[in-house]
Amino acid sequence: MSAASDRPPTVAEAGEAAVLEVLSRPGQAGSGDPVGNGDDAAVLGPAAATVVTTDMLVEGTHFRLDLTTWRDIGRRAVAQNVSDVLAMGADCSRVLVALAVPGRTTMDQIGELAEGIHGEAARSGAVVVGGDLTSATLIVVGVTAMGTLPDGARPLRIDGAAPGDRVALTGAPGRSAAGLALLLAGHHDGTLQQAHRVPELPIGSGKAARLAGASALTDVSDGLLRDLSGMARASGVAVDLVVEALPVDPRLGEAAAALGLRDSEAQIVDWILDGGEDHGLLGTFPPGTTVPPGFTVIGTIREGDPGAVFLDGRPRTPGGWDSAHGAN
Amino acid sequence: MSAASDRPPTVAEAGEAAVLEVLSRPGQAGSGDPVGNGDDAAVLGPAAATVVTTDMLVEGTHFRLDLTTWRDIGRRAVAQNVSDVLAMGADCSRVLVALAVPGRTTMDQIGELAEGIHGEAARSGAVVVGGDLTSATLIVVGVTAMGTLPDGARPLRIDGAAPGDRVALTGAPGRSAAGLALLLAGHHDGTLQQAHRVPELPIGSGKAARLAGASALTDVSDGLLRDLSGMARASGVAVDLVVEALPVDPRLGEAAAALGLRDSEAQIVDWILDGGEDHGLLGTFPPGTTVPPGFTVIGTIREGDPGAVFLDGRPRTPGGWDSAHGAN
Repeated sequence: MSAASDRPPTVAEAGEAAVLEVLSRPGQAGSGDPVGNGDDAAVLGPAAATVVTTDMLVEGTHFRLDLTTWRDIGRRAVAQNVSDVLAMGADCSRVLVALAVPGRTTMDQIGELAEGIHGEAARSGAVVVGGDLTSATLIVVGVTAMGTLPDGARPLRIDGAAPGDRVALTGAPGRSAAGLALLLAGHHDGTLQQAHRVPELPIGSGKAARLAGASALTDVSDGLLRDLSGMARASGVAVDLVVEALPVDPRLGEAAAALGLRDSEAQIVDWILDGGEDHGLLGTFPPGTTVPPGFTVIGTIREGDPGAVFLDGRPRTPGGWDSAHGAN
Repeated sequence: MSAASDRPPTVAEAGEAAVLEVLSRPGQAGSGDPVGNGDDAAVLGPAAATVVTTDMLVEGTHFRLDLTTWRDIGRRAVAQNVSDVLAMGADCSRVLVALAVPGRTTMDQIGELAEGIHGEAARSGAVVVGGDLTSATLIVVGVTAMGTLPDGARPLRIDGAAPGDRVALTGAPGRSAAGLALLLAGHHDGTLQQAHRVPELPIGSGKAARLAGASALTDVSDGLLRDLSGMARASGVAVDLVVEALPVDPRLGEAAAALGLRDSEAQIVDWILDGGEDHGLLGTFPPGTTVPPGFTVIGTIREGDPGAVFLDGRPRTPGGWDSAHGAN
C-alpha cells in the first residue's frame, strides 16, 4: 500500500515501525536508563523501591472523539496513571504506552496523540520509555506509569488513616463532572470542559504529603465520597466532613446556570461529592503534622463504622463511578 | 442491580470491587513487595535493574471468543509480555493487568480469565501485583510484565549481533500460524491449535542466554524472518540461515495434509519463516560461547546489508505480521 499524495498516510499505510517511531520519540531527552526505547522491553536503573501502575483509556467509555482531541486523549491517558503514582507519595519518572487504533487512523492523529503523551509525561517529570501498537476497531490507550521511592521512604498506602487525623484534598472537586455536563449540552469551550478532557495534576504534592508525614493518600478518580469512603473502609475508620470547608470552584455555579438547572445548588453538591476523574489527591494527616501547601483540610477521621462518611454529622452514601458499569 | 438466581452475575451487577477481588487474588502467595494489590499502585522492593514491558490483547485483532477460551486469553496476554522480559535476559517476577470488558461479561468468565492470568504468571515464576478494570464494547487485556537483573548484569539488547556469531532459536517456529489455519478451517482441537491459543514460553532460556554470553536476544512475535531481519538491521549486520538447520515440528506436515493444501511444502516453509506469535527466543552467540540447551543453531551473522537475510545463500524478504495492519 502507498499513501495518496493529497492526504496524510494512515497507520495501516505507514506501518508499525513508523508509528512506534512517532510514539516513542527515540530522540527525546534521555532517561539515563540502560535500555530505553526500541527493544523488547525497557531496562530501568537501580531503585530502592519502584512504584508501578497501569490503566487504560477506552473510546466510548472514557472519551468521545467529537468532544476531545487526540492530543488531550494522550495527555489524559498519561495523567490518570501519573496520578496513581503521586498517590503513593512518589513522583512519576517513566511512562510506557500500549496503543490500539483502527488502521484508518492518520499519522497526523498519531503525531498529535504522541505530542499529548510526551507533553504530559514531561509536565510530570517523566520520560516515555516504551511503546507498543496494535490494531483495533476502537481506540484504546494503555499506560503504565512508574516512579521510585528513596531508600527507607514509606509508601503512602490507602489503609493508614487513624482517628484524629485531618482529611485534606488538593484542588477543587467536581470540575471534571461539571465540564462533562457542559460538553454533553453542546458547550465545547471553557475551563471546566478542559478540566474534563485533561485533569490538572498536583505534581509534587504526593511527595510533599509523604515528607509531611501523611498517614494515608489516594487519588480521587471515582468521586470524592466514594474514594474517601474506600480509604476509610480500608483503614477501619469513619470520616466527618465539614461541608463549609469543601473547596468550591465558582465556575460550578456558572455551569449550573449555563445548563439552566432547576436545583442548581443540589447539582453543585453532587458534582463536588460524587463527580469523578478530577484526580485530586486525598490524604490524612496525623496530629502534629503540617498539612502541605496545596491541600485544603475538609474534615477529620474518627472511630466508627469502617467506611462511613458523615456530612456535617449526617450520613451520606457515595454515588460516583463504578468502572464495572460504565457505558455498557 | 441484583443477579437473577439461575445464572452467574455479570460484571455490571457484581461491581468493580468484586471483579478486582477475583482478578487480583489478594490471598495469593506474597511477592514480598512493600505494597501489592489493592492500593493506587504497587510498590516493588529494591532492584539493581528493572525490566518492564507492556502490550495488549484485543478481541477481533488477536483472538475470537469462538476459537479460544477465557482462560487461554488470560494465559496468552501474560505469556506474550513475559516473553519480552525473557528476551532481555531476565526472568519475569511481576505482572500487572488492565482489563476492559463489556458489562454483560459474567463473573464466571472473569474467574476463568483470572485463572489463566494467575496460572501463566505462576508458570513464569511471577506474581500478579496490580489490576484495573474498565468497561468497553470489546475485550482488551492489557498486561505489564516486569523482571529484575542482578547488579552488573548486562541486558540482552536487540542490536548486539556481530559477524561470526551463531544465530540460535528456542522451540519450533510456525506452530502458532499452522494452529490458526487449522482453527479457521474448523479443526478446533490439537496441539498446534493450543500452541496458537497460548504460546509455550521457554522459561529460564533468556537468563541462560545471558549467562552463556549471548550478544543479542529478541522474541519471535511477528515472524522468524521479520524479527531476525529487525535484529540484524538494529545490529548493522546480515544473516545467513541454513534451511536444513531449521527445527521443524512434524505436526506442520500433518496440518498441511489435514487442510488439503496443494503446495504443502511451500506452506510449511511460509509458516516456519513468516508465522508469528510463537514467542520463541532468537539469540546470537559469539565465537567461544556455548549455546545453551533448548536453543537450535540455525545460521550465522556476517557483514552485509543491515537487515538482509539469506536462505541457503538466496536473499528472502520477510513477510509476517505488521501490527499496524491487523484486522482493519
